[in-house]
Amino acid sequence: MGKYRFEEDEHVMFRKSLRKFLEKEAVPQYEQWEKDRLIPKSFWKRLGEMGFLCPQVEEQYGGLELDFRYAVIIGEEMERVGASLTGVGLHNDITVPYIEAYGNEEQKQRWLPGCISGDFITAIAMTEPGAGSDLANISTTAVRDGDNYVVNGQKTFITNGINSTHVVVAVKTDTKAESKHRGISLLMIEEGMPGFTKGRKLDKVGLHAQDTSELYFEDCVVPVANLIGEENKGFTYLMEKLQQERLVVAMAAQTASEDMLEMTVDYVKSRQAFGKPISAFQNTQFKLVEIATEVELGHSFLESLIEEHMAGKDIVSKVSMAKYWLTDTAKRISGECMQLHGGYGYMEEYKIARRYRDIPVAAIYAGSNEIMKTIVAKRMGL
Amino acid sequence: MGKYRFEEDEHVMFRKSLRKFLEKEAVPQYEQWEKDRLIPKSFWKRLGEMGFLCPQVEEQYGGLELDFRYAVIIGEEMERVGASLTGVGLHNDITVPYIEAYGNEEQKQRWLPGCISGDFITAIAMTEPGAGSDLANISTTAVRDGDNYVVNGQKTFITNGINSTHVVVAVKTDTKAESKHRGISLLMIEEGMPGFTKGRKLDKVGLHAQDTSELYFEDCVVPVANLIGEENKGFTYLMEKLQQERLVVAMAAQTASEDMLEMTVDYVKSRQAFGKPISAFQNTQFKLVEIATEVELGHSFLESLIEEHMAGKDIVSKVSMAKYWLTDTAKRISGECMQLHGGYGYMEEYKIARRYRDIPVAAIYAGSNEIMKTIVAKRMGL
Amino acid sequence: MGKYRFEEDEHVMFRKSLRKFLEKEAVPQYEQWEKDRLIPKSFWKRLGEMGFLCPQVEEQYGGLELDFRYAVIIGEEMERVGASLTGVGLHNDITVPYIEAYGNEEQKQRWLPGCISGDFITAIAMTEPGAGSDLANISTTAVRDGDNYVVNGQKTFITNGINSTHVVVAVKTDTKAESKHRGISLLMIEEGMPGFTKGRKLDKVGLHAQDTSELYFEDCVVPVANLIGEENKGFTYLMEKLQQERLVVAMAAQTASEDMLEMTVDYVKSRQAFGKPISAFQNTQFKLVEIATEVELGHSFLESLIEEHMAGKDIVSKVSMAKYWLTDTAKRISGECMQLHGGYGYMEEYKIARRYRDIPVAAIYAGSNEIMKTIVAKRMGL
Amino acid sequence: MGKYRFEEDEHVMFRKSLRKFLEKEAVPQYEQWEKDRLIPKSFWKRLGEMGFLCPQVEEQYGGLELDFRYAVIIGEEMERVGASLTGVGLHNDITVPYIEAYGNEEQKQRWLPGCISGDFITAIAMTEPGAGSDLANISTTAVRDGDNYVVNGQKTFITNGINSTHVVVAVKTDTKAESKHRGISLLMIEEGMPGFTKGRKLDKVGLHAQDTSELYFEDCVVPVANLIGEENKGFTYLMEKLQQERLVVAMAAQTASEDMLEMTVDYVKSRQAFGKPISAFQNTQFKLVEIATEVELGHSFLESLIEEHMAGKDIVSKVSMAKYWLTDTAKRISGECMQLHGGYGYMEEYKIARRYRDIPVAAIYAGSNEIMKTIVAKRMGL
Ligand SMILES: Cc1cc2nc3c(=O)[nH]c(=O)nc-3n(C[C@H](O)[C@H](O)[C@H](O)COP(=O)(O)OP(=O)(O)OC[C@H]3O[C@@H](n4cnc5c(N)ncnc54)[C@H](O)[C@@H]3O)c2cc1C
Ligand SMILES: Cc1cc2nc3c(=O)[nH]c(=O)nc-3n(C[C@H](O)[C@H](O)[C@H](O)COP(=O)(O)OP(=O)(O)OC[C@H]3O[C@@H](n4cnc5c(N)ncnc54)[C@H](O)[C@@H]3O)c2cc1C
Ligand SMILES: Cc1cc2nc3c(=O)[nH]c(=O)nc-3n(C[C@H](O)[C@H](O)[C@H](O)COP(=O)(O)OP(=O)(O)OC[C@H]3O[C@@H](n4cnc5c(N)ncnc54)[C@H](O)[C@@H]3O)c2cc1C
Ligand SMILES: Cc1cc2nc3c(=O)[nH]c(=O)nc-3n(C[C@H](O)[C@H](O)[C@H](O)COP(=O)(O)OP(=O)(O)OC[C@H]3O[C@@H](n4cnc5c(N)ncnc54)[C@H](O)[C@@H]3O)c2cc1C
Repeated sequence: MGKYRFEEDEHVMFRKSLRKFLEKEAVPQYEQWEKDRLIPKSFWKRLGEMGFLCPQVEEQYGGLELDFRYAVIIGEEMERVGASLTGVGLHNDITVPYIEAYGNEEQKQRWLPGCISGDFITAIAMTEPGAGSDLANISTTAVRDGDNYVVNGQKTFITNGINSTHVVVAVKTDTKAESKHRGISLLMIEEGMPGFTKGRKLDKVGLHAQDTSELYFEDCVVPVANLIGEENKGFTYLMEKLQQERLVVAMAAQTASEDMLEMTVDYVKSRQAFGKPISAFQNTQFKLVEIATEVELGHSFLESLIEEHMAGKDIVSKVSMAKYWLTDTAKRISGECMQLHGGYGYMEEYKIARRYRDIPVAAIYAGSNEIMKTIVAKRMGL
Repeated sequence: MGKYRFEEDEHVMFRKSLRKFLEKEAVPQYEQWEKDRLIPKSFWKRLGEMGFLCPQVEEQYGGLELDFRYAVIIGEEMERVGASLTGVGLHNDITVPYIEAYGNEEQKQRWLPGCISGDFITAIAMTEPGAGSDLANISTTAVRDGDNYVVNGQKTFITNGINSTHVVVAVKTDTKAESKHRGISLLMIEEGMPGFTKGRKLDKVGLHAQDTSELYFEDCVVPVANLIGEENKGFTYLMEKLQQERLVVAMAAQTASEDMLEMTVDYVKSRQAFGKPISAFQNTQFKLVEIATEVELGHSFLESLIEEHMAGKDIVSKVSMAKYWLTDTAKRISGECMQLHGGYGYMEEYKIARRYRDIPVAAIYAGSNEIMKTIVAKRMGL
Repeated sequence: MGKYRFEEDEHVMFRKSLRKFLEKEAVPQYEQWEKDRLIPKSFWKRLGEMGFLCPQVEEQYGGLELDFRYAVIIGEEMERVGASLTGVGLHNDITVPYIEAYGNEEQKQRWLPGCISGDFITAIAMTEPGAGSDLANISTTAVRDGDNYVVNGQKTFITNGINSTHVVVAVKTDTKAESKHRGISLLMIEEGMPGFTKGRKLDKVGLHAQDTSELYFEDCVVPVANLIGEENKGFTYLMEKLQQERLVVAMAAQTASEDMLEMTVDYVKSRQAFGKPISAFQNTQFKLVEIATEVELGHSFLESLIEEHMAGKDIVSKVSMAKYWLTDTAKRISGECMQLHGGYGYMEEYKIARRYRDIPVAAIYAGSNEIMKTIVAKRMGL
Repeated sequence: MGKYRFEEDEHVMFRKSLRKFLEKEAVPQYEQWEKDRLIPKSFWKRLGEMGFLCPQVEEQYGGLELDFRYAVIIGEEMERVGASLTGVGLHNDITVPYIEAYGNEEQKQRWLPGCISGDFITAIAMTEPGAGSDLANISTTAVRDGDNYVVNGQKTFITNGINSTHVVVAVKTDTKAESKHRGISLLMIEEGMPGFTKGRKLDKVGLHAQDTSELYFEDCVVPVANLIGEENKGFTYLMEKLQQERLVVAMAAQTASEDMLEMTVDYVKSRQAFGKPISAFQNTQFKLVEIATEVELGHSFLESLIEEHMAGKDIVSKVSMAKYWLTDTAKRISGECMQLHGGYGYMEEYKIARRYRDIPVAAIYAGSNEIMKTIVAKRMGL
């Protein structure tokens, strides 16, 4: 039986085969990737070959037209290997959908096949050194010059930054727009375009195999043909697509929590102290029961939420709740599960150690948890 | 649309008519009942007339054969009025099911119609001054004497204690049973039986309209015909039925949380300080968003759980999780919502005040939350 | 040895004799007082006779000129009996100090002796139905009319409201003051003054023996001779004296926590379940160790704070921290200790039950805990 | 004025000069040390030259006979630079005291001068792969063979493991002792002794400049002259000295909390979003006020505790409380402060990032926080 009530036989089988693939081609390499601070492009190609990249895309562009349940499974299985693989989810479920939803026919033909094959790796660049939560306040500009835009500015904290060949960049096309939200557009800026350079790979607390980096645009020339959707509508596009981004992040956090619970239950059963397994102490039991309960709560909530998302309902409030609660919970769980591992929990060779230093950023990115709360508050009429 | 995805039109309508009835016949009286420390028997009769007592019972005994969804609705609507009405849920969903499940034909005919009409009010008496969590350790004995049992002992904390006409009493019929669990039986002890007296109504922190009391049995003579099910199988029966009891308590806690959220959102929008509504302070907003999120989490979890219960699945672990988490959460929420009401939150005329002093017992009865955790731990193999 | 490092032999002895007095004259009556919803005036007189009222006052007005350490001891010992006795602390340490600090010679002679003997019982009335946290926003007015003020308005939530003979009332004397804080004055309004009536005793969740009530002023005529300090300086006076009020509330909360810890440790050692004392379960142990740790933290912090207060240092930030943390902590502890008592914890005859319903208001009055945080934030430059 | 009430002028001056020294010789190197995963021995030598190593030691062995207040200052100032410097505190206040307290004259003369000069770096090795919390259960054995012990076994998680020249090793000298605690002794095993090898440097989540490692003893020959104190009394020695170890760890955690609070207050004042500093959002304010309050609570508690320790009182319960609460609190604070830094908080170049991954181990070592609670519980008679 599937993990979710909406999983059917084909989903269960899909999950199985993906897990098998990852166990063979990702799990054994993962530690090395962490040391290299990069997932090699060759792995992306393998994912493409196997049909694990953007399977939702329409067949005419090389996709498999699979529904969102497959995205759920891919997201979860990648996360299970280790948190740095979420860059794949970003590509599949966050950036490529901008092309699908707002790209024109020519753009779809130009970009989607490469995204599916793994030849193109995408990123989305909103954040700047001076503007994160307050997205409307970005200062990267794109000035129209004939058939091109001339882009100037800097982005930072960009996931897939080093590997990416195609970056959806939020730019100001109208710096005089009355409301700051109005003047923003999305440009697809490609590796190799003049004036586009990648900055250093950022040194992070965790997510070591994930290449997060700065991007620089200095009089970068981008053809107007790379404008995604209409000019000055970028903010609206971002707000629309951010819902799925938050869902993806929430799902990853839930998977992390499930994984931590499982490994810790195993650990405490086998580790002995004072002549009995650590699992025999009531404190251990109660802590793990509390975590298991939160995992069940998260599961039911997410299950309903995914269903609503697939049914096309407005999930803004609920996905904001899910994003904040599931990431905060996973963060707390990581500390508690590390603790139950004793000294071993602090050693990199134990997966719980990696979980601990990978998870806290989930409370920050994709809209910080504080921003999630302001969104819900507004919708509650507070 | 219904509150749960499993509600159909008839359930929605049922809820509406029940709510209307309660708004007319319970809400205006509630404060008085609290002062009287009792819900009058006449109200039970009215419930019976309206078909709100034990609607699940088979038609041949006067019931309506309604499914558990109606029980959910009755439980929630009663709780919405005020927490003391949960004695009705106890009657409907906790004690009468013992008769339905383990009673013989004669007993069903003798008792069920009265339970449905409101002429009989039931209670269940397990707890004794010296044995609560450790139920197997009770010391009330029932010694066979011809066609009767002679019962000696004392019960305490019995909900519906004063009003009850029929009490399902857990007694030791075999004091020498090797395992303490083995020797327990259930006897239906009726008001007026010789040697059965009701003790004082207990003075509690809250649940003022709920009559909780002590019961005394001094050489109390109970006909063997009042033995429910088989002798010495009482513990198994209790364990089986306790699952639904815990579900009922969990649902009530969830309803209380929803109610508190709603009233507090309303309050903070209307109350002003420093020239703006209290809802304009970010602390107020974040606290209420957090509560709203917990309410959503509780709702999804409970919705799935009710479905599993109706499908006859084993819900022991999940219902134990639900019982502890939902009651603990409601308890915490009560303190936070009272706080957001300022001084008014401490005044009995505000409903939040009543919620605060009514809710903490839900973490204690129906199996304390600590006992819930030990149950789940065991099932997790810890 | 004393409880605090600053206690000397005479303080230890004083505590002993006060405790003995209370055990004889308060403890046995306390339950009755709770039922009566009032502490009788005769008890106030007894306190006066024994020298426990306002012992800090200068000898020339009948006082004992005792230092603040005695106030600490009186506050703690009263609280230990039961939370409703804090009205005495209000009289001693909160309202009478207004007379001492800002009253003129004539007023001191007129009022202090009665306050010391227990013939006069004082209250302080700031809060109105429409203005609690936002004190500057009160609307009770006092209009000068020759040698009198004519006062109109309403106060609510007034501690000692029913018993009080003398009430320090915050009124607006200048309704046109540019800053709202500027136009406030303090008037001593006495029982029996024309136009002054006491409203109903408010029905609260707890603190049952404490008489909290509404006060009405309808063209109430108050001689100018009853103005405390200068006209329009009331807000400044209040801000100055609120620091000691908050310290008093913090100390009471700490005492409540100590008391709850003690009674719960005793309870779990004696109560048995599953063949051992409840104290043998690791969950019980860890919870109580955590509470004991918080009690130690609170103690050290308070000890330092009292010392700083006696040394005349600016304690605004620290006392605000203490007020919010100690009351929040006591509130949480009350729920945990009730839980550890099982069903008995919910019964009024157990002291933990009373603690649970008495304590939450401490997080609300004397400046709500949210207001405490805004004060500290401001002082941290946030 | 000093930070603690017990600091006198000379302590304040000492702190100043130490801080200045560290700002010049440690702060600028710290990042490099983290990359190297080691603090160079040359730095230890510099510390020795400056008099910062074991200043408590008697003058006859080259020490300065400074009191514990200097140890407090050294511990705090080291921690302020970065958590990996706590290895120095381990040397000064944890391992060298074994020599001072239990070493004989010859040993003191042989070892103390080197410990003071920085030529000798010490470590203490209790933990083994199979025995951490349950110290009595170690399996490293030392068998007497003439004037030597032959040691076999393995230790792990040893702080200063790589740098250390002298390791106090807990060994079983009597494997048949009735109580397992009885048969343990302490041997000083020195670098270069035959059969003693250092294992790999362990790869940890944080504390990167701190060299934690495994140690192997294979028929390692240790002269009986290196036995510290009496044979089979090791467990008692350890229990006695662990109190100061826990105090040192608690102080470091408190310093970390203070440091995090300070840097976060600074950060939120300067970082802007939505047209105002982040410090202007009430959520930011309340979170920081709560942290500031916990820092004050920790400070007062620690201040009293240090005084009691210096006065030679039994601090077992209180130091166990301090160890668990201060480390747990610092751990939680690290997550909250990282969050308030937004994306920058996850970047290694920000100190809060390092704090986050350094701190959680403090809840594990020196006796896990769970062990602390069992100790206090026992002393509370639970
Ligand atoms: C590993 C990593 C990967 C990332 N990947 C991407 C990516 O692929 N593409 C991309 O565009 N961005 C990416 N980001 C950036 C991320 O989305 C931002 O860091 C995040 O939105 C927060 O912005 P900030 O860092 O500027 O924090 P700030 O906006 O400066 O926020 C600082 C703090 O203030 C709080 N705050 C802000 N506003 C309010 C308010 N109104 N009320 C209360 N609190 C408030 C925040 O919650 C936070 O705690 C990534 C970041 C990281 C660390
Ligand atoms: C208002 C009210 C109504 C009630 N209604 C009914 C009713 O209708 N019928 C009925 O039979 N009973 C009823 N009860 C009784 C209720 O079910 C018991 O109070 C409850 O089961 C706890 O038992 P106890 O009070 O004996 O607590 P104890 O069993 O003494 O427990 C005391 C504390 O120890 C903890 N504890 C116990 N065992 C463990 C363990 N193994 N590990 C860790 N902690 C443990 C408990 O969780 C609790 O915190 C009612 C109680 C109340 C207050
Ligand atoms: C039992 C009792 C005894 C009392 N005794 C006295 C007495 O003797 N004399 C007297 O004058 N008063 C007394 N009071 C009144 C008490 O001081 C007020 O209730 C208290 O100051 C809160 O005011 P309020 O009730 O108007 O709440 P409100 O001011 O309406 O506050 C409602 C909620 O909003 C929050 N809030 C308000 N402002 C902010 C902000 N800026 N940011 C975030 N949150 C905010 C509050 O913290 C609270 O949670 C008493 C109250 C009680 C219940
Ligand atoms: C960076 C680092 C530096 C260290 N430095 C040193 C050093 O210099 N010298 C040295 O000798 N050791 C050192 N240690 C080891 C450290 O002291 C141990 O890791 C610690 O004592 C815990 O032991 P353990 O790892 O075996 O955990 P375990 O004992 O296996 O414990 C696992 C979990 O079970 C819990 N547990 C155990 N017993 C109970 C109980 N009775 N009740 C409830 N829960 C329980 C623990 O709290 C923990 O959460 C260091 C460790 C680290 C990570």
